[in-house]
Amino acid sequence: MYAIVKYTSKPVMKDPWFIEALPGIGNVGKIAGDCLAQSLGAERFAIVYSENFPPQVIPDQDCVVHMACNELWHAKTPSGRDIIFLRGDFQGSTPEGQFFLAQDIMDVLLAFGVSKIITLGGYGTGQVSKDLHVFGAVSRIELKKELEKAGVTFNPGQPAAGIVGAAGALIGLGQMNGIDSFCLMGETSGYFADSRSALNVISVLKKILKLRKVDTKALSEEAKKLDELMNQAAQQAEPPQERDELSYIG
Amino acid sequence: MYAIVKYTSKPVMKDPWFIEALPGIGNVGKIAGDCLAQSLGAERFAIVYSENFPPQVIPDQDCVVHMACNELWHAKTPSGRDIIFLRGDFQGSTPEGQFFLAQDIMDVLLAFGVSKIITLGGYGTGQVSKDLHVFGAVSRIELKKELEKAGVTFNPGQPAAGIVGAAGALIGLGQMNGIDSFCLMGETSGYFADSRSALNVISVLKKILKLRKVDTKALSEEAKKLDELMNQAAQQAEPPQERDELSYIG
Amino acid sequence: MYAIVKYTSKPVMKDPWFIEALPGIGNVGKIAGDCLAQSLGAERFAIVYSENFPPQVIPDQDCVVHMACNELWHAKTPSGRDIIFLRGDFQGSTPEGQFFLAQDIMDVLLAFGVSKIITLGGYGTGQVSKDLHVFGAVSRIELKKELEKAGVTFNPGQPAAGIVGAAGALIGLGQMNGIDSFCLMGETSGYFADSRSALNVISVLKKILKLRKVDTKALSEEAKKLDELMNQAAQQAEPPQERDELSYIG
Amino acid sequence: MYAIVKYTSKPVMKDPWFIEALPGIGNVGKIAGDCLAQSLGAERFAIVYSENFPPQVIPDQDCVVHMACNELWHAKTPSGRDIIFLRGDFQGSTPEGQFFLAQDIMDVLLAFGVSKIITLGGYGTGQVSKDLHVFGAVSRIELKKELEKAGVTFNPGQPAAGIVGAAGALIGLGQMNGIDSFCLMGETSGYFADSRSALNVISVLKKILKLRKVDTKALSEEAKKLDELMNQAAQQAEPPQERDELSYIG
Repeated sequence: MYAIVKYTSKPVMKDPWFIEALPGIGNVGKIAGDCLAQSLGAERFAIVYSENFPPQVIPDQDCVVHMACNELWHAKTPSGRDIIFLRGDFQGSTPEGQFFLAQDIMDVLLAFGVSKIITLGGYGTGQVSKDLHVFGAVSRIELKKELEKAGVTFNPGQPAAGIVGAAGALIGLGQMNGIDSFCLMGETSGYFADSRSALNVISVLKKILKLRKVDTKALSEEAKKLDELMNQAAQQAEPPQERDELSYIG
Repeated sequence: MYAIVKYTSKPVMKDPWFIEALPGIGNVGKIAGDCLAQSLGAERFAIVYSENFPPQVIPDQDCVVHMACNELWHAKTPSGRDIIFLRGDFQGSTPEGQFFLAQDIMDVLLAFGVSKIITLGGYGTGQVSKDLHVFGAVSRIELKKELEKAGVTFNPGQPAAGIVGAAGALIGLGQMNGIDSFCLMGETSGYFADSRSALNVISVLKKILKLRKVDTKALSEEAKKLDELMNQAAQQAEPPQERDELSYIG
Repeated sequence: MYAIVKYTSKPVMKDPWFIEALPGIGNVGKIAGDCLAQSLGAERFAIVYSENFPPQVIPDQDCVVHMACNELWHAKTPSGRDIIFLRGDFQGSTPEGQFFLAQDIMDVLLAFGVSKIITLGGYGTGQVSKDLHVFGAVSRIELKKELEKAGVTFNPGQPAAGIVGAAGALIGLGQMNGIDSFCLMGETSGYFADSRSALNVISVLKKILKLRKVDTKALSEEAKKLDELMNQAAQQAEPPQERDELSYIG
Repeated sequence: MYAIVKYTSKPVMKDPWFIEALPGIGNVGKIAGDCLAQSLGAERFAIVYSENFPPQVIPDQDCVVHMACNELWHAKTPSGRDIIFLRGDFQGSTPEGQFFLAQDIMDVLLAFGVSKIITLGGYGTGQVSKDLHVFGAVSRIELKKELEKAGVTFNPGQPAAGIVGAAGALIGLGQMNGIDSFCLMGETSGYFADSRSALNVISVLKKILKLRKVDTKALSEEAKKLDELMNQAAQQAEPPQERDELSYIG
């Protein structure tokens, strides 16, 4: 309840959609959201400070400090859809703090007349796999059809441990306020910042937002490197068959 | 102090009794209370949201999310007794939060003129045993006689570690408000969701509520499976005597 | 700030002294204070409930529950000195909670015109020893002389880790309010409920309160048993010399 | 939000500078700030009590207790610059508590018309090294040039984990209030109270504050002892080469 929302501008928006892109499992939500915001030329219009963030500043490359905060960015899609992004490096430092922050954000969104709430996250499996689904959870069942068309998989009752933090609280508060809300979760091992999983989430968002193009060049290169690393690791982990056979002979 | 109680209906009740059935040791209280509520055809009339719950949503089998919450359900026994059930998958995420929630619930109960407070829980022994008592604790000594008739055992000064969470706070707040309150604790190892222990609690509740019948079919089947599993485990754990004897000969 | 002080009576007192006797290191403070209160025929006049205690009830020997709380007891010494005891089984469940509780208690004490604040505690050494000092810390240096006469030892800068919880907060708040305050800490290993250490604290309190007699019979018997146990343990721990010598021969 | 600022005097100041010197990594900030305050003949003018500190008193060499607190000290440099020091043995006991305290302090500073905020801390490397930099982080990029002249090193994006606690929160709040703010971090292993690192920070502060002389005699002696200890440790850790060679021959 202590957040200070500092507006740097007050963009005019019509029934904007909201995309939450904060750090989380495999950092999938943050990577996907940041890439999309950048590609759409989003501009920051507000900073959210709060005692519910850690008492901490982060120095940038110029050694200029930045208070732990979340930021609200505004973008317009080519077809004219207003989008508000929630971006940042922090989630609240306690469960209650995360709740308070989500409520503060929701108040801002309601004031802007938000008409859809999309939260992004990772769906941690603990396993490195090649096929990475994008899983979904919705505020009402009617939203599933459209999401399935966009490539979203629905895994009944999953994730069983629930969706926690901003991604969970904001879809929940959206639902309580009667706003269509859903969460897109990129499947990921959860062991590293997962650019491949983020690319899959972007691919779904592209369809949902009816975007012709999203600039994912940098992200794709990272994903390629990640793939190579993983292939190398997989080869080293594979049992060196020939040797094994020889040892049987010897 | 932050709870929002969202009423979906306002049932008319006369001096209702209250049954708390939230998760806890061996999940005994939740299993017993949920089974009884279902058998009595209880209907949900209010949802309790609060920052004291984790910032979390849970997807159901349709992948529709549900905000972490507690729910109030209303049932009428065949003999006309109104009952309010407190049900849910969560307790408060901090000690203070559990206190705040209990106070919020108590406020609701007082407004409905609650005349008896029954909290359900498990009595963890750390041991798997066949005979499972239902232990009790009361807000005033005069309540013991009736409970003993219903099959409740009173173990002086036990549980020594106290009764914690909603089951403890609500009986305590009940006592402070001069309402007859008691806690029924199903004896359980505490190692798994204990349907056998829950059946014992239901058997006591049946007498206390003067119910002719409670539909425990599903629960009894689960308990039977549990019994079989435990018998198997016990047999495997027993020393295979014959073999041992043979090994002495050999 | 949430405490409810429930008065069961409002004793008239003149400049009462206050003795804090809550659980802590070696439980020395609680044991000493409870014994003294009992010996003086103290009567409970108020119960302090608070969300800062754990959400918990404790069943007594009758299985009647008692909400986690602190209690205020009143006694009059033979020479007419009013004494308020703070007794109970709990301290606040968080650092802030302990602070809030201490402030709530202090408000009550100020309302009663408290003229001296004595907090009791243990001084943990981690070592079992025979000579157990009673160490002191004071709100102003002038208080030391009288305490030294009563047998209190002052160990400069000790305990270096400070005095925490109610014993620390209440002497600190006493000091801030200009009331003569001191803490008596019975030396103890800290490994068990230390009745011997409590007896030493009582012996100091007896002199400070100018009491002719304190009934410590039960406590002395416990201390004797403890001494015997410790002697036995010491003998078993000692190297059995003769045997060792024999083993060298063999 | 609960702090009580108890003024023992209200010094008149003109656009004072502020120096934070609380405990932290290698205790560098506290050691440096305390030494400078002493050398400038600073006088305490306010004590900050708060529930956000631990519920604790600390006995001094006279066994007189001191409530956990922070203190504000005032000094005037020979050239007439007013300086407010924040000194003490404690930081807030929770992240939120640290935030609340920083805000309380900032309110005091704003009331005094503070014109510069300097926070001191350690820059932990986990390695014992001989050359210890003083690293910096600033509220706006223009401040770097002057600090570099005073010997401060700027390490882009470092410390990557951010600056936490009072040193971080106060520079952040300073920045939010449009006050020139920077943090000086003495490089340190972080394994012990680092007087050498503190001397380096003082050397930078001397230039920034245009001081002819700071009395660092006691600190220098400590640093010398530390150097000797470290040299001894280094010699013992070095592989005894000759012996090794001999063992190859033998």
